[in-house]
Amino acid sequence: MKHSEGLEWAIHSCALLAMMPPGTPLPRRLLAEFFELPEPYLAKQLQKLSQAGIVETRRGPRGGYVLARKPEDITLLQMVEAIDGPDRHFVCTEIRRCGPTGVAGKHYTRPCGIARSMWKAEAAWRKELAATSLADIQHLGMAETPPEQTAKAIAWFQANLLQGETE
Amino acid sequence: MKHSEGLEWAIHSCALLAMMPPGTPLPRRLLAEFFELPEPYLAKQLQKLSQAGIVETRRGPRGGYVLARKPEDITLLQMVEAIDGPDRHFVCTEIRRCGPTGVAGKHYTRPCGIARSMWKAEAAWRKELAATSLADIQHLGMAETPPEQTAKAIAWFQANLLQGETE
Ligand code: FES
Ligand code: FES
Repeated sequence: MKHSEGLEWAIHSCALLAMMPPGTPLPRRLLAEFFELPEPYLAKQLQKLSQAGIVETRRGPRGGYVLARKPEDITLLQMVEAIDGPDRHFVCTEIRRCGPTGVAGKHYTRPCGIARSMWKAEAAWRKELAATSLADIQHLGMAETPPEQTAKAIAWFQANLLQGETE
Repeated sequence: MKHSEGLEWAIHSCALLAMMPPGTPLPRRLLAEFFELPEPYLAKQLQKLSQAGIVETRRGPRGGYVLARKPEDITLLQMVEAIDGPDRHFVCTEIRRCGPTGVAGKHYTRPCGIARSMWKAEAAWRKELAATSLADIQHLGMAETPPEQTAKAIAWFQANLLQGETE
């Protein structure tokens, strides 16, 4: 069981957008360049984030992506579900009712114990993800980014964004 | 993100083995028949359970599968990892080091905050699964099985196991 590869990219993208000064949309091309990612595949992740209401686009010569909400109001769970979908990981296909000893469906009054146990664990996972915000991720990231990188990043954004990039 | 389809089958198979009277191996053919599953694909799940030390085979004319440990000593986590593998669901590919602003690897002293946050949620999920035993699953199953089905199952096993089935 694995997350989509695009999940890592999506979370990094959101964390980077969270760092941008207010009113500074980030063109998709720069996002891809910053992380050395293939732009068409990154575009798919950004589209999913946009459909989930996490990012939005600004049109125009200085257009690009911005966060649609404050980092405090975006949870890790929302980003994960935007990319991987909201479905449960465990699917009960009701095989308890199959075979030579199964009886009519009406005799099974609630979800089976296997599914309930699996879903309880998923709920613990979701709860943890919902308790972590993009702001938390951003602060962890800021604390662990080497100062050399921070300096290079500021210089790189100044050089590239000042050129009036478009999406 | 989804579990393998075989996971449901594997857990049901273990729960059924847990119900068998001591010293009564269950032939694979009967396991498949009981749940109406394709035997070759069920065989793959049983092989994984066997590699994980959860079930074992008894040879001979009355051979078949038995649990390798008591249901109290088998956790839901062990069954899940036997089928899906023990790997983490979130993989950090260290893209923080990539791109025009990345700096040398030695400057990043520990796993990144994104991975740590994702793994924390996985740990909560694993903890929940590790706290549920096959005995718990078995008791939930017994409580919710319609009495008609229990009666049919006992009759079916008596009729089929008494014929001296082999694996
Ligand atoms: S009946 Fe199989 S998991 Fe619910
Ligand atoms: S650097 Fe991307 S998740 Fe760790």
